[in-house]
Amino acid sequence: MDLNSDLGESYGAWRMGDDAAMLDIVTSANVACGFHAGDPAGILDTLRAAAERGVAIGAHVAYPDLAGFGRRNMDPASRELVADVIYQIGALQGLAAAADTRVTYVKPHGALYNTIAHDRRQADDVMTALLELDPGLVLMGLAGSPLLDWARERGLRVVAEAFADRAYTPEGVLVSRREAGAVLHDPAQVADRMLDLVRTGEITAIDGSRVRLQADSICVHGDSPGAVAMARAVRQRLEAAGVDLAPFAAARAS
Amino acid sequence: MDLNSDLGESYGAWRMGDDAAMLDIVTSANVACGFHAGDPAGILDTLRAAAERGVAIGAHVAYPDLAGFGRRNMDPASRELVADVIYQIGALQGLAAAADTRVTYVKPHGALYNTIAHDRRQADDVMTALLELDPGLVLMGLAGSPLLDWARERGLRVVAEAFADRAYTPEGVLVSRREAGAVLHDPAQVADRMLDLVRTGEITAIDGSRVRLQADSICVHGDSPGAVAMARAVRQRLEAAGVDLAPFAAARAS
Amino acid sequence: MDLNSDLGESYGAWRMGDDAAMLDIVTSANVACGFHAGDPAGILDTLRAAAERGVAIGAHVAYPDLAGFGRRNMDPASRELVADVIYQIGALQGLAAAADTRVTYVKPHGALYNTIAHDRRQADDVMTALLELDPGLVLMGLAGSPLLDWARERGLRVVAEAFADRAYTPEGVLVSRREAGAVLHDPAQVADRMLDLVRTGEITAIDGSRVRLQADSICVHGDSPGAVAMARAVRQRLEAAGVDLAPFAAARAS
Amino acid sequence: MDLNSDLGESYGAWRMGDDAAMLDIVTSANVACGFHAGDPAGILDTLRAAAERGVAIGAHVAYPDLAGFGRRNMDPASRELVADVIYQIGALQGLAAAADTRVTYVKPHGALYNTIAHDRRQADDVMTALLELDPGLVLMGLAGSPLLDWARERGLRVVAEAFADRAYTPEGVLVSRREAGAVLHDPAQVADRMLDLVRTGEITAIDGSRVRLQADSICVHGDSPGAVAMARAVRQRLEAAGVDLAPFAAARAS
Repeated sequence: MDLNSDLGESYGAWRMGDDAAMLDIVTSANVACGFHAGDPAGILDTLRAAAERGVAIGAHVAYPDLAGFGRRNMDPASRELVADVIYQIGALQGLAAAADTRVTYVKPHGALYNTIAHDRRQADDVMTALLELDPGLVLMGLAGSPLLDWARERGLRVVAEAFADRAYTPEGVLVSRREAGAVLHDPAQVADRMLDLVRTGEITAIDGSRVRLQADSICVHGDSPGAVAMARAVRQRLEAAGVDLAPFAAARAS
Repeated sequence: MDLNSDLGESYGAWRMGDDAAMLDIVTSANVACGFHAGDPAGILDTLRAAAERGVAIGAHVAYPDLAGFGRRNMDPASRELVADVIYQIGALQGLAAAADTRVTYVKPHGALYNTIAHDRRQADDVMTALLELDPGLVLMGLAGSPLLDWARERGLRVVAEAFADRAYTPEGVLVSRREAGAVLHDPAQVADRMLDLVRTGEITAIDGSRVRLQADSICVHGDSPGAVAMARAVRQRLEAAGVDLAPFAAARAS
Repeated sequence: MDLNSDLGESYGAWRMGDDAAMLDIVTSANVACGFHAGDPAGILDTLRAAAERGVAIGAHVAYPDLAGFGRRNMDPASRELVADVIYQIGALQGLAAAADTRVTYVKPHGALYNTIAHDRRQADDVMTALLELDPGLVLMGLAGSPLLDWARERGLRVVAEAFADRAYTPEGVLVSRREAGAVLHDPAQVADRMLDLVRTGEITAIDGSRVRLQADSICVHGDSPGAVAMARAVRQRLEAAGVDLAPFAAARAS
Repeated sequence: MDLNSDLGESYGAWRMGDDAAMLDIVTSANVACGFHAGDPAGILDTLRAAAERGVAIGAHVAYPDLAGFGRRNMDPASRELVADVIYQIGALQGLAAAADTRVTYVKPHGALYNTIAHDRRQADDVMTALLELDPGLVLMGLAGSPLLDWARERGLRVVAEAFADRAYTPEGVLVSRREAGAVLHDPAQVADRMLDLVRTGEITAIDGSRVRLQADSICVHGDSPGAVAMARAVRQRLEAAGVDLAPFAAARAS
């Protein structure tokens, strides 16, 4: 199983998250590319630290919205979105080369991530960007979302991710953050759920029913000390149970 | 002989220069990377047009200063400047791959260009960026400047450029723009000077003396209709005289 | 009658429109505030030129989207949008004070303009910004849009504008740009329509019917030589017919 | 005596400093204006919190350099620098009006602060900005720097500030950060020094000699828990000694 987290999200004089701690926990790092977070020098530091630890690198591409941290919906034209995504991946590839590593996958960030999970036009733009730049790039997306099917149709390799700290509906969809119980806070419970998911391919939904969830990677957060502790708990539970933690196959193979 | 020009310098809704016209004239295009000019979609258009015509691509890297068009001196720390340059080249490499071409050289822009012609610290930062990203990248710099020697010392291939529309001192240095006669305006005169330079390896300095100028490329401008006309005059004069116009060897070979 | 146009939209090294020409035509200038266009030095030049000619100043506030020229939909939170609008008006007020003039009205730009014409939440945010900063600021909006009613309800003075070069439906709504005939190109026809509007308070809709259009200002464009010519034609036709051209009353009175 | 600190320096999703804690300590707040730090919504929050506590507001204007936090030297043209400063002050004035307070002084930030302490050209540009916008604005600058004399010559009111945590030379100049002992870390010692300064108008220089230091305000930092503790120690020592802590007279009077 693969563990991924969003990293490289400091910017200039501002710190966010504890990249060093998280790079000891995860096997894949979604690294900011400068559009929602990340300045080149800070990104390069994160890439070097990831390379030292053998952590796989994904491009965490976003809308051009530093002030909104890429969390605000935007409506770029297709020619803009395609080129913006290529630009960000290319920039990260350059920095990765300087850090003696390389970008193996792409995970869109924030509002872009949520939009392409269901919006075919913007999803196609992101996929076009990958296909034009390097068809070998893997697309990481939300487990259970139509995006993954669309990507397979277009010949992209995909990685489906589950969110460690989120509740799921009986249909295998994330419970909206606006609803009670959507976000889980107990590290032990979260770790148990993820071990359960790895072993059975199922997760207990918010109503107590069991739902199948095809996930190749588990997303953990690192933007607060509590988040780091939860991520560590997930890793330790999986390791203690003998689960092999490694970058997903596409990343390893390439 | 190689003819180069700064292209891809439109930004969003704003146009600058006539890239299509210039791509029919030059053999190498210094393409903006987004820090002083150029948005990803516009850069990609320029790269595609350059690829169609077999024009070589250089990364026109700059200080992060859109409002000042990269013409204002800045004092970034080395870790910042190294990473900023890698980021920009990488972004352009990504867009170039999508346009089925590639970046063969790097020509710093504006204030960065002028600073590294004489400032060893920032020059070293730019060279470190190239060496860490891809030591095969060629550095284009000012003919006669110490930068070219520094770059050769560090193992980089260099291309020296002369400016078609600028006067030179008897020492082979550009006459400062603050002095009368520094900028030439007559297309026929400029074309004659460049043909003279190609044939003799010398140029007539502002005082009438002859000075040796080792140049592998001639820089022409395209930011006004008059500039395009001058660039075209240079090309036509060289072609009429049987001069072979092609990207400099490093670009062709690779 | 008032004639308004979008000005101050150059940015750094990039030119847009012919502000000097337009300031001899219009009576109100919607001046960019730096979020979609306009750098402080260029804005100040435009304000000084407007002040010399007695042209009224409006703040042309926008989403923070320089690359997209403020034309892309965005979804800022209310606390962000309110503060972004205040920030932009304040910045323009400061520059206006330095130019010995002042900001009398606010006209949102591009995607923000279109959104608040029908989206109550964002409309309320913009109105809140005006009310918190200075309730004496007039809001300029689309003639016939619900925004104007909402603004009156909240105690703001409003100015309704008609677009000189656009066709209207029989309901007095702009014909979508996606439909044939939406944009008018003949200066003489446009000038005739505007004189008709001023005299009768009605306009001929795209189907030939007559529709009432309550407009306090006419918007003309200046982003191309053809646009400037059309704007001049409108002014000349109105002047020749004895129409008094002046900033709308709120601007004059204050 | 006045205590001032740099506030409002968070940006979007990134936090910096503890504004709420510092606003209970200082009497004047140098509030970021968006060029080196501060987004409009966050600035507005800080202004409202300052207004509630009666803390005076200064515009903490900077070079346009978010990535470098305004700490990198830049070389803007005079027309650019003048307009950039007016823009920032105006934007903050707008937000201050919405927060029912107002901007009484200007304190340049970072590299701009250091540059204008000795560079007459840029100092004049900043002063021109204040004079063109509102000659009643007070300029806060480094105690002992020529800037203060230049500003008085041009008719501006000035406030000289001392740095609580910095060592001084026998000439009353800040010891360079590159030298040992330049920065003081012991809150008790720092508090003692400031009480000494307030009582005697002198400070003990790094060589043990006494030097006269004309200071109207003391600058304390709040960018770390240790810094907040030091600032609190200074305030408590001064209060315990019966020193009246209040915004400097110009701010109070206006």
